[in-house]
Amino acid sequence: MTYLPRTHRLADLTWPEIDELRPHAPVAIVPLGATEQHGLGMAQRTDTARAEAVADMVARRMSPQVVVTPTIPVGMSEHHMAFPGTLTLSPVTLQQIVVELVTSLHRHGWRRIFVLTGHGGNNAAVDVAVSRLRAEFTDTHIAWSGVTPVVSDLVKQNSDSPVRGHSCEIETSQALYVDPELVLPDRLVRGSATLDDLDPAGRLARSHPGIQFPQGYDALSRTGNLGDPRLATAELGALLVDAVVDRVCDFLTGLIGLPDRSPAPPPAHIALETS
Amino acid sequence: MTYLPRTHRLADLTWPEIDELRPHAPVAIVPLGATEQHGLGMAQRTDTARAEAVADMVARRMSPQVVVTPTIPVGMSEHHMAFPGTLTLSPVTLQQIVVELVTSLHRHGWRRIFVLTGHGGNNAAVDVAVSRLRAEFTDTHIAWSGVTPVVSDLVKQNSDSPVRGHSCEIETSQALYVDPELVLPDRLVRGSATLDDLDPAGRLARSHPGIQFPQGYDALSRTGNLGDPRLATAELGALLVDAVVDRVCDFLTGLIGLPDRSPAPPPAHIALETS
Amino acid sequence: MTYLPRTHRLADLTWPEIDELRPHAPVAIVPLGATEQHGLGMAQRTDTARAEAVADMVARRMSPQVVVTPTIPVGMSEHHMAFPGTLTLSPVTLQQIVVELVTSLHRHGWRRIFVLTGHGGNNAAVDVAVSRLRAEFTDTHIAWSGVTPVVSDLVKQNSDSPVRGHSCEIETSQALYVDPELVLPDRLVRGSATLDDLDPAGRLARSHPGIQFPQGYDALSRTGNLGDPRLATAELGALLVDAVVDRVCDFLTGLIGLPDRSPAPPPAHIALETS
Amino acid sequence: MTYLPRTHRLADLTWPEIDELRPHAPVAIVPLGATEQHGLGMAQRTDTARAEAVADMVARRMSPQVVVTPTIPVGMSEHHMAFPGTLTLSPVTLQQIVVELVTSLHRHGWRRIFVLTGHGGNNAAVDVAVSRLRAEFTDTHIAWSGVTPVVSDLVKQNSDSPVRGHSCEIETSQALYVDPELVLPDRLVRGSATLDDLDPAGRLARSHPGIQFPQGYDALSRTGNLGDPRLATAELGALLVDAVVDRVCDFLTGLIGLPDRSPAPPPAHIALETS
Amino acid sequence: MTYLPRTHRLADLTWPEIDELRPHAPVAIVPLGATEQHGLGMAQRTDTARAEAVADMVARRMSPQVVVTPTIPVGMSEHHMAFPGTLTLSPVTLQQIVVELVTSLHRHGWRRIFVLTGHGGNNAAVDVAVSRLRAEFTDTHIAWSGVTPVVSDLVKQNSDSPVRGHSCEIETSQALYVDPELVLPDRLVRGSATLDDLDPAGRLARSHPGIQFPQGYDALSRTGNLGDPRLATAELGALLVDAVVDRVCDFLTGLIGLPDRSPAPPPAHIALETS
Amino acid sequence: MTYLPRTHRLADLTWPEIDELRPHAPVAIVPLGATEQHGLGMAQRTDTARAEAVADMVARRMSPQVVVTPTIPVGMSEHHMAFPGTLTLSPVTLQQIVVELVTSLHRHGWRRIFVLTGHGGNNAAVDVAVSRLRAEFTDTHIAWSGVTPVVSDLVKQNSDSPVRGHSCEIETSQALYVDPELVLPDRLVRGSATLDDLDPAGRLARSHPGIQFPQGYDALSRTGNLGDPRLATAELGALLVDAVVDRVCDFLTGLIGLPDRSPAPPPAHIALETS
Repeated sequence: MTYLPRTHRLADLTWPEIDELRPHAPVAIVPLGATEQHGLGMAQRTDTARAEAVADMVARRMSPQVVVTPTIPVGMSEHHMAFPGTLTLSPVTLQQIVVELVTSLHRHGWRRIFVLTGHGGNNAAVDVAVSRLRAEFTDTHIAWSGVTPVVSDLVKQNSDSPVRGHSCEIETSQALYVDPELVLPDRLVRGSATLDDLDPAGRLARSHPGIQFPQGYDALSRTGNLGDPRLATAELGALLVDAVVDRVCDFLTGLIGLPDRSPAPPPAHIALETS
Repeated sequence: MTYLPRTHRLADLTWPEIDELRPHAPVAIVPLGATEQHGLGMAQRTDTARAEAVADMVARRMSPQVVVTPTIPVGMSEHHMAFPGTLTLSPVTLQQIVVELVTSLHRHGWRRIFVLTGHGGNNAAVDVAVSRLRAEFTDTHIAWSGVTPVVSDLVKQNSDSPVRGHSCEIETSQALYVDPELVLPDRLVRGSATLDDLDPAGRLARSHPGIQFPQGYDALSRTGNLGDPRLATAELGALLVDAVVDRVCDFLTGLIGLPDRSPAPPPAHIALETS
Repeated sequence: MTYLPRTHRLADLTWPEIDELRPHAPVAIVPLGATEQHGLGMAQRTDTARAEAVADMVARRMSPQVVVTPTIPVGMSEHHMAFPGTLTLSPVTLQQIVVELVTSLHRHGWRRIFVLTGHGGNNAAVDVAVSRLRAEFTDTHIAWSGVTPVVSDLVKQNSDSPVRGHSCEIETSQALYVDPELVLPDRLVRGSATLDDLDPAGRLARSHPGIQFPQGYDALSRTGNLGDPRLATAELGALLVDAVVDRVCDFLTGLIGLPDRSPAPPPAHIALETS
Repeated sequence: MTYLPRTHRLADLTWPEIDELRPHAPVAIVPLGATEQHGLGMAQRTDTARAEAVADMVARRMSPQVVVTPTIPVGMSEHHMAFPGTLTLSPVTLQQIVVELVTSLHRHGWRRIFVLTGHGGNNAAVDVAVSRLRAEFTDTHIAWSGVTPVVSDLVKQNSDSPVRGHSCEIETSQALYVDPELVLPDRLVRGSATLDDLDPAGRLARSHPGIQFPQGYDALSRTGNLGDPRLATAELGALLVDAVVDRVCDFLTGLIGLPDRSPAPPPAHIALETS
Repeated sequence: MTYLPRTHRLADLTWPEIDELRPHAPVAIVPLGATEQHGLGMAQRTDTARAEAVADMVARRMSPQVVVTPTIPVGMSEHHMAFPGTLTLSPVTLQQIVVELVTSLHRHGWRRIFVLTGHGGNNAAVDVAVSRLRAEFTDTHIAWSGVTPVVSDLVKQNSDSPVRGHSCEIETSQALYVDPELVLPDRLVRGSATLDDLDPAGRLARSHPGIQFPQGYDALSRTGNLGDPRLATAELGALLVDAVVDRVCDFLTGLIGLPDRSPAPPPAHIALETS
Repeated sequence: MTYLPRTHRLADLTWPEIDELRPHAPVAIVPLGATEQHGLGMAQRTDTARAEAVADMVARRMSPQVVVTPTIPVGMSEHHMAFPGTLTLSPVTLQQIVVELVTSLHRHGWRRIFVLTGHGGNNAAVDVAVSRLRAEFTDTHIAWSGVTPVVSDLVKQNSDSPVRGHSCEIETSQALYVDPELVLPDRLVRGSATLDDLDPAGRLARSHPGIQFPQGYDALSRTGNLGDPRLATAELGALLVDAVVDRVCDFLTGLIGLPDRSPAPPPAHIALETS
């Protein structure tokens, strides 16, 4: 395939370019970010930057098969609002944004769509949106993921902090790799990294797997971060992010290979055959 | 403590009894179920029954510290609608139900609330609802869980099916333990239990951990179930459900022991101290 | 007709059983309840129990022609929230529940649907929901009622209390018949049973037929009930409930006998013919 | 009381006049109408006109104690949409209008509010709105009624049609009294006036008191009206409307005489005293 | 064309009359008003009256080509709520009213619709509603305007007040022309008519064209009006309103002359031809 | 004032930096963009880029008095959806985004907020949002503008096209100045630049000032643009954009100089003094 678009970003293209690209690009990625505190030494746009970087790397690797919409730079960050500067959308509004962006893509003919959120706080809203979209667009394959959860096996192998997640060494490493300007290395401090660093509610929340007891980050950490970002390295970030890109590309290749989605025939009377 | 209420179920009590019980019962559980197909041999109310049974067992064990609201018998089951008889609520309506039930409890003075869903399809809506409630009621501890995810370690030790989850041996065992009338043992059939049993989209969905690619159950399984429920036993159900009850009781005991929730003081100017 | 389903309750059946039952069962009943105070001597689930009992009795009598969805155990009970333990949904959420349950039934092929509310506080929300559903599903017959209003003639013949309605001898009699465990007979007390028992607003509300001046029950009655439930008997309950069942069965038989609903042809130009 | 405002209609006054009138006028009436077909010989604005006329007559009789907002000239008329020209609002929008008008009045200090609907199709939406408003404004007395239901006893004494209601002799008589221009007497025709005039669904709907089985008016009547409006007289209209005015004035006088509404004290521990 | 309807107002007609008129009347006008303070000497219904008057004059001039719905007598008037008696709808509710009225008209066959608002505060809600309607009804031409903005050139020629707009000489002149009862001439006072009459925020708002800095009218003017209504004359009102009518008629004549609206063919591949 | 923040962009800062900056930065700007077709030779992100550039230039000029939130990169672009690649939000969702971003800023202490939209299609939604926010946050000054409307006088002086607006020489000049990569100069073509270039509906829409008759851009222009962008120059762009920046800075300086906003005292009884 010798055709190469000027870029995979829908926002950077003209409409005739998109018109030409469309038949070559079966997949559209919708990246979601956040503007929320990331501790003492990392910029508020970290989640936006990580989602956008992964989307761009995937699209470049698979060019011209993937287009990317602009990254939504705010998300569901209520649990960070005690820190100055965090911006938050309600979950209903975030759902609606995802639904309407995907609906726009669907109207232009896309039938394989991937929502990629750099911020775990967006998960529930995305999940609900995808559920609604699957029911409405029965001809469309739609999938979603976060960034870090795609490599949770590698995370376990590369971090020893009993408590980690937000603005820890794992996330900070990714930031150092995708955009070093996100990080002020000499401001990084160890956050709440062990159960003992947490207040009683935080300890309770972290010691019962399978039970969700969400806490505001002001309760979890005086500095707004978990783990120990001083241990972060760009090398670890590369290892993690490149693996995310590999795996998402692998998934999208599978997605492209699927037959078009169509409603299954009604399963009635199967019972009689099987019993 | 010698006071014992007639029952822990709010629906079975009179208002003067609830008035008397209230100071003794700091925790309220809100159970959520579903009415959805559970394969050829299990009743549609299975998720409702499991959530209600766990809530009742927890409340009896901790009596009089826990009250239980009526179980909502329908949930988010869009992905089962291709099978005759499944009922489904939209995610927005389910969110709203949880928000309004918890708001009612809050108006009557409860400040420690646990939402327990027997149906995984409800998770995202519950997550969003809890997030909204945390932001609105800053004086209330609120947590939630499913049933099976609380014992995912035990599930791994007791099931070999590479593909399982809905109406598999794990869920059917629970049903046999909490209410044997849920199961028609001679109708149980092996469902989609290995990747090879799935269609290409189902295989893709199940082979990329961390990536969510939700599928209608009509695409996943001709019979509507996964795994092999013929392997289910009431003994395994007892092992799993009793462990869920143990762990939820342990969590709730911790929850009761927490100080009252109150908004944290603003963290401003911490930076200066730490850098 | 010799075919008999295991039960008429959708929640208790498997999907193949529902698939088999569906062509024999043209009518679906959606029962609605409430969790609200019922005075000093009756359980909060009284309305749920009455709606469910009537639905079950109707379905058994007409078997296999009627299926029943799970009873929604909470309703619109804002006017009882001053008493400990009452749970309430907003009218918009309750509307939405009815709309979505009926929509689910419609997707599975039901075209004759009956919503039965055990709680009068749900009426307006049900009325609105039914109105929306009629407009949307022009191929579906949809009707609704309460329990007691179906036998208002018999109520007048069997009660002398000038003020009655909630948790009075009429409702308590029904409870004693459908489920004696709902009632704690030695706790029953006379409530506000005459205009003199009411406060001025309550008196005003009850003395202008046709004008609605809704009052919180805390204003209407110190004990939360009207009338005199000490006069209740299971015999009166049987007389009332059996008559409700007779009349609903009679209506549903008529409903089954109707031709399928279809949009009427446009009435344009009728004027010319008639004038 | 010698003060007399120029008019009781808020829309016709200037703000300084309203400022002066406010302390003399404890009651505000919110009239609601409809724009919907009224058979072959009556204008679509009939319900608007009847509500407005009653509100004006009440306010003049009780001057200066009552102010009146502008009549909302459209309502919930989905069941008439098969006839050319009917306009309809959704029930949610109509609820919202009532809520927002009453909220505006509340912000200006009114604490006794009466919603008067000339159109029965608005009832459920008004009921829901009033329920929401009672819960939100705990310092406000709020009541509502239709026009004809206030004199249902007189209706029974003055009409023999077994089937009546919409655009029948009762409604047409009112129209002839409040505004003769509403009626084109030589176009009036007998509508569906007996059960035999109805189609099977209409007959079923009208023969089970207490069961609601709403029908589109296109199904109920080829001409869009019930009863026999040729029997209407302005004298009967005067008898009915004057009685409505009497009774509403009587109610509002009672409403003005009530103490200010305030939330009742919590009823907790009453049980102990009474049992 | 010799056919003449009894009136152009849908609310005043019967359905058979509308049925007959419909093919002769391709255009429907939806007038919107407000109930809001208009200074010391003008009635709250001024915007309603001006919109209705223009709609009626247009419809009479173009008879039988134009029908008119009832004027909605309340609008978005939050910025006037500091004055006693103003009523306001939320913008979402107002949008919904416009959407639902136009939808009703569309269901009856109208495909050329004009929304005419007498109140500038309604503009944004109308704009949003029209945008939604255009997207939904792709076969319908829909346009909207205010009253005064249609003759902004004439306004400039006939007013010297540096600050004007609400209840100024321009609006008062229109009121004197369309309905002299709207005005109490001896109560009229000069309002805020120059930048010096405004508070600092008002001055800032009025001195940066293109920047919107909305102010409550209580901040803009102690009396609730701008400009100097004592300069108003019925002659100026006639000049302005007659010009509005001329121009709207001219536009509607153009609208009737347009071909039916239909979705344009997709513009794809135009690029290749043009580049 | 010698304090200088690292940057004015909230997304690029850490929370302690924002905490430090906050008391120095009384104004927050919320930029809004769009992803929509801009003719054959300009990128879809043009509106996003122009809004962001102006916000950044203003903030740098006034540093440290102004902070800037991330630009929302999609807007209300329904009227461009016939061209491949345009993304659109519903007006309700866009309103909600603005409301929630401003609410977040308000929670962090900002009381002077400026919403700047690069896309005219967003205007109505922004207007509604600002109206809601003014009513809710009575202690906050909130203003908004587009980019080009701030210099409409200069536009008139520098363009001769009778029809212009979208992707014309004015907008393209701005793009050349703020980010030359937005433009593919050799793809630029003359769009619909005179009334004769428009279809009949477009001509009608453009020939009645004050009447809004919105048209899809597919109807207005085969290429999706108006005017003649081949006439664009970076010099003209500099003239226009620099003037926008000057004027917005001037306005914001005025805004900072205003006293804190507070609700005005009620104006009651002013009438007596003045008449």
